[in-house]
Amino acid sequence: MTEFWKELPEISAKLDAVRARMKDVVGSGRFPLAEPVQELIDANGKMLRPAFLIMAGRFGKRPKDLTDLAAAVELLHVATLIHDDVIDASDTRRGIPTVHSRYGAKDAVLAGDWLFSRCFRLASESSSPENARLLAALIGALCSEEIHQDLERYSWPRSERNYLRKIAGKTAALFSLSLRAGAVEAKASPSTVAALTRAGYAAGMAFQVMDDVLDYESSEGAMRKPVASDVREGLCTLPLILAMRAVPGRFEPLLAAVGRGLARPDDAAIGAIVDAVRESGAISSSRDLASAYTGRAMRELSRLPPGTPRDELRGTVERLLSRDY
Amino acid sequence: MTEFWKELPEISAKLDAVRARMKDVVGSGRFPLAEPVQELIDANGKMLRPAFLIMAGRFGKRPKDLTDLAAAVELLHVATLIHDDVIDASDTRRGIPTVHSRYGAKDAVLAGDWLFSRCFRLASESSSPENARLLAALIGALCSEEIHQDLERYSWPRSERNYLRKIAGKTAALFSLSLRAGAVEAKASPSTVAALTRAGYAAGMAFQVMDDVLDYESSEGAMRKPVASDVREGLCTLPLILAMRAVPGRFEPLLAAVGRGLARPDDAAIGAIVDAVRESGAISSSRDLASAYTGRAMRELSRLPPGTPRDELRGTVERLLSRDY
Repeated sequence: MTEFWKELPEISAKLDAVRARMKDVVGSGRFPLAEPVQELIDANGKMLRPAFLIMAGRFGKRPKDLTDLAAAVELLHVATLIHDDVIDASDTRRGIPTVHSRYGAKDAVLAGDWLFSRCFRLASESSSPENARLLAALIGALCSEEIHQDLERYSWPRSERNYLRKIAGKTAALFSLSLRAGAVEAKASPSTVAALTRAGYAAGMAFQVMDDVLDYESSEGAMRKPVASDVREGLCTLPLILAMRAVPGRFEPLLAAVGRGLARPDDAAIGAIVDAVRESGAISSSRDLASAYTGRAMRELSRLPPGTPRDELRGTVERLLSRDY
Repeated sequence: MTEFWKELPEISAKLDAVRARMKDVVGSGRFPLAEPVQELIDANGKMLRPAFLIMAGRFGKRPKDLTDLAAAVELLHVATLIHDDVIDASDTRRGIPTVHSRYGAKDAVLAGDWLFSRCFRLASESSSPENARLLAALIGALCSEEIHQDLERYSWPRSERNYLRKIAGKTAALFSLSLRAGAVEAKASPSTVAALTRAGYAAGMAFQVMDDVLDYESSEGAMRKPVASDVREGLCTLPLILAMRAVPGRFEPLLAAVGRGLARPDDAAIGAIVDAVRESGAISSSRDLASAYTGRAMRELSRLPPGTPRDELRGTVERLLSRDY
């Protein structure tokens, strides 16, 4: 986090305040797992969502302290991380032992639930009813899309529209809400709120498409094994969808090796799929779509009133989408 | 549910409307697990919390439709049931297969999270900010006390105060909030709100103490094996606490057979503990405490303005606490 924000000391300082507030909230009352959750907060990454919220708040007519709302948004994220670790039975996250591995599934599920409730309480105390509702709607959409994604695993649906709807709910909605909520709270003009909402959406779409591209492009280990964690887990993302369309009939036999209930696919089977995707030209078509979304995000941002808030937000989105960090 | 409310057709009809609203909410949008959750709603029990909320709303100065808020309160309960089934890896609940057994832990955790968010959204749309906040605080207290309880398992803490604090957060707070929220929404007088809040608290305490007593009193199967599920799971409830105090030194050797990581205790070991609790006189002391709370609840209820709402609420609490249903 310090790395990513080091050129923007004002944002960095505000994020430190958000982190302190989150730790306060977690340490308050009778919550018994304050310590491991506080450690997770300290190890937390770029804190993009609260940063977007705070950056959007700088476009408002009246300055408002958004620390509480930003803390609520990020606590939601921490809650989902804790539940993710239960679901995946993960032992560590960012190098520290997970709540799940230290206290078991029961307490980890409950700790996530506690954080959800604490986040909604904080949001309802610190923001407009509209934003409290948006936050609840957002986390609902996120859970709902995650379930859809899970139910579709290993069925390799080849609808681009279906894919776009899923990543809209999973990623774009989060980026969009963070920017929108900050602008609404700070009473920015309707046109600024609208531009930030659309910019967040487009930036989120670009970010997720690139994530899915990178999953096909990266490799690891001395043997340069393809990572391809999505296809290993039965997830059908844009590169595979476009590849299946580009080369009809090519993927069915390859994907037969990756299925629910089958043995873990070996690296040769995965490597064959990745090679076929790369050869199909689908990677560059996917990159084109990401670029189109990036362009849309940058255009929306250029509609904002000129000044430092706009320059810093544009710089941040650009750096984020070009993975230059 | 029909059985419990059959003498109160007005309440019964309103609970049907709450159930219909809950099923609407679950069926709306893109939530992919609507069907199993709707089945769970149909199989749901007495719906005490929404019933209390609606009954308390009848003391208000102005009638208000509390269907949405009641649905929100009960959806919270359904969310916790779904997470409980993940935690306990249960296959069925009320005779129907659990979301966990049908779709796996991942989708069940996410479905519970979706319901949490949907409930908070509904509450923030349909109630005063105060009640939306109370609801969030309540679910937080519930999760927090459940974690405390889990962390204390097999340590047999003998503090009565600690026990009372736990059941206050787990059960009494839910009863109390349901009555309070209904009265607040319907603009009941401050003294009525206060009496209902206290009555709900006392009734919840009485209900939970009796639950814990019944766990020591009931037996099952042809051999009349003691149920004693609490002590089997390492939970230290009031009868055991009072027994350990009444007969110092008696329980340490018996409880050594029940511990985290030990083999499942056999029925003889459990039977010996239950017998010792019964012989200690702790059951009747526990019943005395439940009676004291019941008396307090009934006294608070008698302070309410006379009329049908009071008579029906008193009758319901009486029936509930005497387990006459």
